[in-house]
Amino acid sequence: MAAATARQVNIAIIGAGGVGKCFLSQLEQLASRRPSPKLVLTYICTSKKALYSTDHVAIPLDTVVSTLASSTQAPLPLPKLVDFLGTSGSKTVLVDNTSSQDVADAYPLFLSRGISVVTPNKKAFSGSYKLWQDIFSAAERSGAKVYHESSVGAGLPVISTLKDLVDTGDEVTKIEGVFSGTMSFLFNSFAPTSGAGGKWSAEVKKAKELGYTEPDPRDDLNGLDVARKLTILARLAGLPVESPTAFPVQSLIPKELESVGSGDEFLEKLPAFDEQMEETKAAAEKEGKVVRFVGSIDVATKQVKVGLEKFDLSHPIAALKGSDNIISFYTKRYGSNPLIVQGAGAGGDVTAMGVTSDLLKVLSQIA
Amino acid sequence: MAAATARQVNIAIIGAGGVGKCFLSQLEQLASRRPSPKLVLTYICTSKKALYSTDHVAIPLDTVVSTLASSTQAPLPLPKLVDFLGTSGSKTVLVDNTSSQDVADAYPLFLSRGISVVTPNKKAFSGSYKLWQDIFSAAERSGAKVYHESSVGAGLPVISTLKDLVDTGDEVTKIEGVFSGTMSFLFNSFAPTSGAGGKWSAEVKKAKELGYTEPDPRDDLNGLDVARKLTILARLAGLPVESPTAFPVQSLIPKELESVGSGDEFLEKLPAFDEQMEETKAAAEKEGKVVRFVGSIDVATKQVKVGLEKFDLSHPIAALKGSDNIISFYTKRYGSNPLIVQGAGAGGDVTAMGVTSDLLKVLSQIA
Repeated sequence: MAAATARQVNIAIIGAGGVGKCFLSQLEQLASRRPSPKLVLTYICTSKKALYSTDHVAIPLDTVVSTLASSTQAPLPLPKLVDFLGTSGSKTVLVDNTSSQDVADAYPLFLSRGISVVTPNKKAFSGSYKLWQDIFSAAERSGAKVYHESSVGAGLPVISTLKDLVDTGDEVTKIEGVFSGTMSFLFNSFAPTSGAGGKWSAEVKKAKELGYTEPDPRDDLNGLDVARKLTILARLAGLPVESPTAFPVQSLIPKELESVGSGDEFLEKLPAFDEQMEETKAAAEKEGKVVRFVGSIDVATKQVKVGLEKFDLSHPIAALKGSDNIISFYTKRYGSNPLIVQGAGAGGDVTAMGVTSDLLKVLSQIA
Repeated sequence: MAAATARQVNIAIIGAGGVGKCFLSQLEQLASRRPSPKLVLTYICTSKKALYSTDHVAIPLDTVVSTLASSTQAPLPLPKLVDFLGTSGSKTVLVDNTSSQDVADAYPLFLSRGISVVTPNKKAFSGSYKLWQDIFSAAERSGAKVYHESSVGAGLPVISTLKDLVDTGDEVTKIEGVFSGTMSFLFNSFAPTSGAGGKWSAEVKKAKELGYTEPDPRDDLNGLDVARKLTILARLAGLPVESPTAFPVQSLIPKELESVGSGDEFLEKLPAFDEQMEETKAAAEKEGKVVRFVGSIDVATKQVKVGLEKFDLSHPIAALKGSDNIISFYTKRYGSNPLIVQGAGAGGDVTAMGVTSDLLKVLSQIA
């Protein structure tokens, strides 16, 4: 072994949006702090532009955002990208910072060529169960690694904790929590443990103004984002859940507003339905409880569900603040008091943190 | 590479007490579930007995506890054990399930010979700063790994979370929490958020009867166990804390009872000092708060301290239950709402779980 041969790992990145930019900044810091392995960015693209050279020359990290913005190169089609990365002669990690189903669908191809994948993209792990199986069997066969901590709870140690519980032989009996920063914010304001809280439609409007919702708030209120996260956790806990629509998911979009044209029109018409949510809140208050939007997985009965539930004021789920997530793992070893992880479950920097720490885990194994 | 050559990793274990027995059971399960790498137990000892053969023959895991109990072999002196393990020709992991300072002092020797170490033993990481440096520089040089998740908060993801935060470039500003299951139980009963709570001396007695304290409860009440955990976390956060006695640690042992002979005599005389604790509790109540025994690390001001503090009833530290630990990480990325990890921080099974998951991390890197 020649001491002079510095170990090198190539990095390819798809996506340079909110999370992508935060990741690039963390990657630059990382590369400057750690001399080994040498991290070499050889490919980066958005949906429209790309940066790479056929001889895999390193793209400077300090100027990559502006260089990419002014690039005239188009992204490589995914099968071509697999070939490009697979022929570099160096170990390679693909970082998918998109939420694209197309990129997710190509993971088995990347992995089968020995290219490891780290990503916050939920689509691959919450799509069809076949894709899930294809991903992990491709990784198993080639020895490439696949990590996706930020697909649930952003940088919070949720996936890694669940994997550790399962891999060490604990028996996970139930997982319960608030998995959406948007839903957390909405219910902590609408039905706080002290004080009256605002009108439902007003809280949704405020959340949108603060940037806590998707451009169309219905993309949060339909519960699908939470259902995707539950699908991932249920599968890791051993339940072969077929898809995020294979179990009951309560949508908070009034039927009458499902098909109105725009998010703005939806917000305009939402006040007419405040009464429904007020009743739900009042019913909980009558029992001395508050209402929260939660997901739960009962492993023994194989029941997965997403929707409104009532909680005692002293319950950690009721006491949540801001837009925090909380995830409780009930297991045989932990008994009646669950292992709880809590904190910000959304945001560019903390999501990118999960991606960066996944990258470090991959590097420790392949480099 | 011959496909027929199954990868093999040798395991050596020191300690077969409460945690040690739970670990053996998890190891047996693990070895039967995962065909690769093949885990081969080649050495195990308690302080009095040992099991090994000069040609490193595998010790059957299903009968090891009884075989060890009836063994007539004496443990190898530590330097001899290093030689024994270092000459096996296989990659080796030492699992130290003791709380022995002697074993901890030998980690640099094991690591320098390429033997990885996983352990819940706090002594190595909370002893002198020189030992800390020797351990990590020996590992750095040889490439051997050293993991110690269960040295703080048992199996809770505390060390791994802090490392991830630091390694991905987050700035940890403060760490605060309840780090002792015993102290948690005592204060949750003595000063509950609702109800009156019992007398201090009665709660200490009850905790001892339930097996929640050391044989002499003063070994919990002196705060040293918490100080050791804080030392470890502070060092991981970048503060070169010299030792667990290098910062203020409040002891809950009345001065007059420090030198009474036995734990039982201590318990007999403790009621005479209930008034002091009653006053502390009343002072907190006057402010609408409860008193808790916490540790905190302020990274910016480099202040580490252990002792009683007052908390609002709605604070997660006040709302803790049973003998749970809670650890809050305040960082630049997470802002005003910390990343929180909570759950059982003591007990054989959950402590062994941290050791087993550390072993899995080492295996993923060396095998």
